Amino acid sequence: MSKSITKRAEDYSKWYNELVVKADLAENSGVRGCMVIKPYGYAIWEKMQAELDRMFKETGHQNAYFPLFIPKSYFSKEASHVDGFAKECAVVTHYRLKTGEDGKTIEVDPDAKLEEELIVRPTSETIIWDTYRKWIESYRDLPILVNQWANVVRWEMRTRLFLRTAEFLWQEGHTAHATQEEAVAEAEQMLNVYADFAENFMAIPVVKGYKTENERFAGAVETYCIEALMQDGKALQAGTSHFLGQNFAKAFDVKFTSQEGKQEYVWATSWGVSTRLMGALIMTHSDDNGLVLPPNLAPIQVVIVPIHRNDEQLEAIREEVKKITDQFKKLHISFKFDDRTTLKPGWKFNEYELKGVPIRLAVGPKDLENGTFEVARRDTLTKEVIAKEGLVEYVQNLLEEIQVNLYKKAHQYRAEHITEVNSFDEFEKVLETKGGFLSAHWDGTVETEEKIKELTKATIRCIPIDRKEEEGKCVLTGNPSKGRVLFARAY
Amino acid sequence: MSKSITKRAEDYSKWYNELVVKADLAENSGVRGCMVIKPYGYAIWEKMQAELDRMFKETGHQNAYFPLFIPKSYFSKEASHVDGFAKECAVVTHYRLKTGEDGKTIEVDPDAKLEEELIVRPTSETIIWDTYRKWIESYRDLPILVNQWANVVRWEMRTRLFLRTAEFLWQEGHTAHATQEEAVAEAEQMLNVYADFAENFMAIPVVKGYKTENERFAGAVETYCIEALMQDGKALQAGTSHFLGQNFAKAFDVKFTSQEGKQEYVWATSWGVSTRLMGALIMTHSDDNGLVLPPNLAPIQVVIVPIHRNDEQLEAIREEVKKITDQFKKLHISFKFDDRTTLKPGWKFNEYELKGVPIRLAVGPKDLENGTFEVARRDTLTKEVIAKEGLVEYVQNLLEEIQVNLYKKAHQYRAEHITEVNSFDEFEKVLETKGGFLSAHWDGTVETEEKIKELTKATIRCIPIDRKEEEGKCVLTGNPSKGRVLFARAY
Repeated sequence: MSKSITKRAEDYSKWYNELVVKADLAENSGVRGCMVIKPYGYAIWEKMQAELDRMFKETGHQNAYFPLFIPKSYFSKEASHVDGFAKECAVVTHYRLKTGEDGKTIEVDPDAKLEEELIVRPTSETIIWDTYRKWIESYRDLPILVNQWANVVRWEMRTRLFLRTAEFLWQEGHTAHATQEEAVAEAEQMLNVYADFAENFMAIPVVKGYKTENERFAGAVETYCIEALMQDGKALQAGTSHFLGQNFAKAFDVKFTSQEGKQEYVWATSWGVSTRLMGALIMTHSDDNGLVLPPNLAPIQVVIVPIHRNDEQLEAIREEVKKITDQFKKLHISFKFDDRTTLKPGWKFNEYELKGVPIRLAVGPKDLENGTFEVARRDTLTKEVIAKEGLVEYVQNLLEEIQVNLYKKAHQYRAEHITEVNSFDEFEKVLETKGGFLSAHWDGTVETEEKIKELTKATIRCIPIDRKEEEGKCVLTGNPSKGRVLFARAY
Repeated sequence: MSKSITKRAEDYSKWYNELVVKADLAENSGVRGCMVIKPYGYAIWEKMQAELDRMFKETGHQNAYFPLFIPKSYFSKEASHVDGFAKECAVVTHYRLKTGEDGKTIEVDPDAKLEEELIVRPTSETIIWDTYRKWIESYRDLPILVNQWANVVRWEMRTRLFLRTAEFLWQEGHTAHATQEEAVAEAEQMLNVYADFAENFMAIPVVKGYKTENERFAGAVETYCIEALMQDGKALQAGTSHFLGQNFAKAFDVKFTSQEGKQEYVWATSWGVSTRLMGALIMTHSDDNGLVLPPNLAPIQVVIVPIHRNDEQLEAIREEVKKITDQFKKLHISFKFDDRTTLKPGWKFNEYELKGVPIRLAVGPKDLENGTFEVARRDTLTKEVIAKEGLVEYVQNLLEEIQVNLYKKAHQYRAEHITEVNSFDEFEKVLETKGGFLSAHWDGTVETEEKIKELTKATIRCIPIDRKEEEGKCVLTGNPSKGRVLFARAY
């Protein structure tokens, strides 16, 4: 098959790049660092969006839309934000082109220079808090629970499809509250929403934790995160939720009159997940044959491939298939009956394996005689012959079973790849030989964190929310520590 | 009420601007020409998106996503496209900022200049056809039926919320076909989808037609459009669908091997509607009291306002209301029970009138005694008292009735404002005194079209698809004409 891909064990990174392109998920465009998300990849993203959007609305949020451009000066207003963000950005300096002197080429019109440059949003805290100032006067205007689905641009030097692209799609929630307690509760709630989504839809187990000061979002008082583990032992930050304190309210002068009649600064959160989740989804479950998709996010849950020698056989198969698919429709099971006669069944089998369709049904003349279908699972690559009478129920249960099985498999892999290490020797050895999360004591200083990163390329992924208090000694310095944190090399 | 708005008869334009802001639909942002779409406005746009997306998918289209940026050189490739589009655009010239010498301000880093400038997409034909070249080899790869939901930027000098903004949201369909016939059929199909959506969801009657050469999309062979009429007698183009011939295929060298084994250029269409539809929706139905929304697009279809003096009464009302809303849920009727005790019923009545909620239910102690609800219609501003037993069914029917009534009203207005004129005197007089569409003979030349525009500010909105062949004399020149076209002043 021309569509075969590099094996993971051979070159994990190459395997990923080939898989994304060959499974028709995304590809590089003519614009450096910007990807094209192809229909099949976008259909998965749409399923993610639909579930997340539902979860956001169920927790009281509404969608809105804010400008793509942010005036340069806005970034100077929140001191730590500018350091973290405003540097690698796309800058709009002009607003007109004109035809060149040759009458063919076009060039930037020097007369159309903007007075103040505009930055293509790398994130929207500044423009949104500039807007919230107009929306908030009294405690009665709070909370504001708003989310935005949008594209953002960060000028990354090294890009990889889905994982790190100059432009990416995401959602960013931005909420405003009257009290610190309420804002913290919101940030924690959204972390739980993300974890719930990752585990129940993406079938990816995640560690909930908070970031060290060093790894915090620029402008945040606390950054919560969910961390996932990929099959190559590297961690991937799958979502973040920030408690922003009053930093943006102070920078943009957003005050409210409290119930007691006092003027107070508003408390803020922001939280986001992006098309990076596509990378996490792909890398968590897929194998050397291609993509493996959890049924809850698969655009096609069941593909049906007819095996026939002539039109008459195809017609007979079509009739049997219709009885099944009519029931699929009622049960909201998404399916595709691939009856193209220009392609052979073997080609189709490979194609849908590559594309990660959870269940494949095959039916030929023998099956018609026997009243059966062949059912193949993408996750285990096993096949069974099932009588047509119980088929629909079987498929329905199997979809649930595959969803659970993928989560279990990923959970088991992660459980095997969280290793407690108690010396720096051990730290380095486990990191090199096994990878995964290293649960280690750390003395709480930025210096130690950076030294370890310098020596090993491992960073502190998070301080787990449920970690136990435990006296210990820092794995690098031997200084006292109050609990273990999770280190890993990361995407 | 502080929220009262200017009357339409006083100043239609001011009425519109105030309405958009006071009904919480959108507002201007700190970025020139870019709007903030507020949650209530965005909820209407989401309803539009959901219906259109469903219609696109039912006609076989899939969504995908292409880059925000387009290299400048791409625009030079399609000759007529560059003239029409690439001029008033946001141009990205740099990719980095740095901290200024004062350590506080930030400035554009002169070392981070792009080799080739990037244009923020004003429309995506060029980047998409650059991509399709890689997707298309044989007739088996056709058709490609792709749509994109995206933001685009056109640097407009005079902007108005929803109607004309520098950044706006839209969908753009881009399809590729093996034959001219198929591409033309696609362009016509999508025009019909738009007309169906406008009439059945927005309750806006539209004229289907095609544009004169002068008004055609830059790069199109034929531009189909739907034209609506606003309450001030001005026309508004609500959607366009373009048959692009082989223009973009030739510009980007996109060929396919036909079934006969020949190399041929691919045929193209593109079609789009934007947040401009929000402007059409607002201007078609609303009145001096505020917004009027058709039930099929209203985020809240029914609002319920309790009228009470004490908590006990509120509790009793809450109980009755719950019985009704439980049934609303089952019927997918969206509702809001506004039981805020900080605001008076009269304030709420005004608020929901301003926001165009189709039906308002009010219930007080008297109603509890009598087993009734007061039902108020937003479209006619009439009220009735209805027994609670039949209320849900009554509301369900009323929602349908309001939807139909809004369409009828708009249709009647339009019918009264299509005037056949047979001399230029008549043309000018009707345009000044009555406005609306002028159905007039035209000699088919660009010169006449432009002369009429210069003299009257009226343009040819479209050549109606269903116009009858009719010999006549051009309203300006007296030269022979084969049928009437529709002129109007337009947004």
